[in-house]
Parts: sequence; C-alpha cells; structure tokens
Amino acid sequence: MWRLYQFPLCPFSRKVRLLLSEKGVGYELWRENPWEPSEGFWRLNAAGRTPVLEDKAKGVVLADSRAICEYFEETVDRAAMINGTAANRAEIRRLVALFDENFYGDVVAPLLHERMKKRLVLRQPPDSRVLREAMKLAHEHLEYVDWLVETRAWLAGSTMSLADLAAAAQISVADYLGGIDWTGHDEARGWYAVFKSRPSFRPLLTERMEVIQPPAHYGKVDA
Amino acid sequence: MWRLYQFPLCPFSRKVRLLLSEKGVGYELWRENPWEPSEGFWRLNAAGRTPVLEDKAKGVVLADSRAICEYFEETVDRAAMINGTAANRAEIRRLVALFDENFYGDVVAPLLHERMKKRLVLRQPPDSRVLREAMKLAHEHLEYVDWLVETRAWLAGSTMSLADLAAAAQISVADYLGGIDWTGHDEARGWYAVFKSRPSFRPLLTERMEVIQPPAHYGKVDA
Repeated sequence: MWRLYQFPLCPFSRKVRLLLSEKGVGYELWRENPWEPSEGFWRLNAAGRTPVLEDKAKGVVLADSRAICEYFEETVDRAAMINGTAANRAEIRRLVALFDENFYGDVVAPLLHERMKKRLVLRQPPDSRVLREAMKLAHEHLEYVDWLVETRAWLAGSTMSLADLAAAAQISVADYLGGIDWTGHDEARGWYAVFKSRPSFRPLLTERMEVIQPPAHYGKVDA
Repeated sequence: MWRLYQFPLCPFSRKVRLLLSEKGVGYELWRENPWEPSEGFWRLNAAGRTPVLEDKAKGVVLADSRAICEYFEETVDRAAMINGTAANRAEIRRLVALFDENFYGDVVAPLLHERMKKRLVLRQPPDSRVLREAMKLAHEHLEYVDWLVETRAWLAGSTMSLADLAAAAQISVADYLGGIDWTGHDEARGWYAVFKSRPSFRPLLTERMEVIQPPAHYGKVDA
C-alpha cells in the first residue's frame, strides 16, 4: 500500500492524488505540515517538500510530484495522462510546468503564506496588498485557461491529460483560499465544473483544513 | 535547425545545451535577456522564461527545460539520459527537480540577482548578507553531492544521467558567479572535474557574460 505524505492544501499532492485516483491506484494519506517537517520526512526527501510516496513493503520512495506522475504513467496503463506524439507530450509537460511553477509562484504560494501560514503559524493578519496582487495574477492566468479551452477540448489537446490535473490542483487550492474570482471566466469555469464532477476530485472538495474554511461555492459541483 | 532562446548564465538553458550536445543534436543560440523579454518571446512561451527551442521550418516550439529534455529523450536514442527501471527513472527525475528547484532557488537565483541583475540592470551593489546565505546553502547542497558521489558512480546511479546534467548546469552558473567554495568537497569536485572535461561542457566554460567575469578556476578543467 502506498502512503502519500501530504497536507490538504498542497497543490502538488492534489495533482498526485488526482492522478492516482484516475489510474485506480490505492493509497493512504499521511499528514506532513510544511511548517514543521519531521526529521523522518527529511530523510525521505532531501528537498523537504510534499508530496512523497512510500511503499514500505517494497522499499520504494518516490519524491517530486512530476517524477511521481511520470512513474505511474510508465507503470500503470490505465488512464494515460501523458499521451500522443512527442510534440503532444511536450505540450502537456509545458503546461504542467506552467501551472506548477508560474501559477503556483504567482498565486498559490502567496495565498498559502497569507491565508494559511500567517493564520496557523505566524498568528498575523494577511497583507491585503499581497492578496490583491495574487488575485490579479490569478485573473491573468485564468484568461490563458479561457483561451486554451476556447481552442481545445482539454487544456493540452483533444483528451484529458496531466496538464488538466495540474491546473485543477493549483486552481482548487487558490479557490479554497478565496483567491479566484470566476466572473468573466466562463470558459475556464465550464472546464473546471466538468472536473469538479469527476469521482477523482470529490474527496479533495469535501476535505477541510482546520480553522481555514473555503468560500461557499468551493465544493459545489454546479457553481 | 533548432534555435535555442537563452542567455549565457541561464542554468536551465545550460542543462538543455548539455543534453543536445551529448545527443548530437545541432542548434543555434539566440540571446534573450530575462530582464527585457521581447514581445515575440512571450508569444513563444507563456511562462516568459528561457529556454525555448524552436524549429521554424517544422513549426515546432518547445518550452520548459524538463519538457524539452523529455522530448529529446523520447525522440533521439543516442546517449539515453533517463534510463533504467521506472524506479531508476523516478530517482533521476527527483534529482533533476532537486537541482532545478532547490539548488536554483537557494543558490543560483539569489546569485543571479545580486551579481548579474544588480550589476547590469539595477546598477546597485550586491547585498553581502544575501551572498553569504547563498554560499552557505551551496555548501549544504555540495555536501549532498559529496554523499551521492561517495555511494554511486554518478549522481543517480551507475551511469551518467539527466541528474548529472541538471546538477552540473546549476553548479556551473553558481561557480561562474563566485558562489562555490570547493574546499572540503573533494568528491563533488572530482565528479565536476570529470564533467568539465566532456566535449559537451567546453563551449559553456569558454563563454563569458559581458562585464561579469568568473573566478580564475572556473574554466580550468583540472581545477
């Protein structure tokens, strides 16, 4: 049995959870708070970050969300998520990096700092200037998602791919933290609503991070 | 002919250049300064970052250094760099992420800001406190490299892999910017010296970024 070291608002863990569910791979959750990584966790992953996936019986430890996704893409045929020609696969991986790096750095990382770490650890009020900037950048990223969805069935092409999972994972955390204003983003909202109704996404939408509550529309499939 | 959009001290472009050379893929260099990306460059890559690889004749544009490396690994058999079992490949990709994200974020990004951007763009002196912290973290990362090289022939296992290219690319930029003190890191230095003598690495070591000069040992293969 795989054990996934994660915390509820880690977007990279969410991407891995979506992939494992789509592929039908079972796992148990193990909570690892980013502000107090345990000594054992550093030994599992020198990068000190969630997600890490461990199978103790087999002695396998996988770290880094993209490495984990590539591993299951190579070892589990069901629900191929990095598919098509080499150019298609490069496009999928480009978009995964865009959401993992740019959307995360512009939007999710500042929201996590202001709305999670300051609340739970630093006991400080959020900086409204930082929140406004993150929401402005979220708007720009959603315009790009609107454009992708206008021109393609799914973000990277004609079929659902890891790019959709990576984007949905990041957007879902930003949405939980009140960082997404969906007004004017009908295309992106339509794509995301389809995603929210998938069985792989339901467990994520019903989870709550202690103290921090999402806005009312967050868990609703038709919102 | 592939055109690589890059600048001389971009570690991600260096990783791609090392891979293309090892695989025998020809390309031309196209300078793109990170502090003044051209309008055309944003159209090529929504993430706004080097490296981007373009083949105009074929109408192919590849962006994100890991997506680019996976593309050539899939399309060029020569010099396999993500090789072995699924677990081996996951270990290679974990280390690539460790150097691309942690080493870059801890060491190379602050060095580029203090020693390149402040010099060429902001016209400010570097902050010695930031430089000291980057060098302290470089030391810790090199201890990890020492440990890897003590236990394995190459960073990710028994053969050279993309992990070695990613590490050498990041370390070479840090070394150029005077951020590496090799004292006490004999294992890492030995591994890096082997790398420096490879034909794929020579063009990088002889290039210079205007105004900014590397320390004397930087380009020497036996130093």
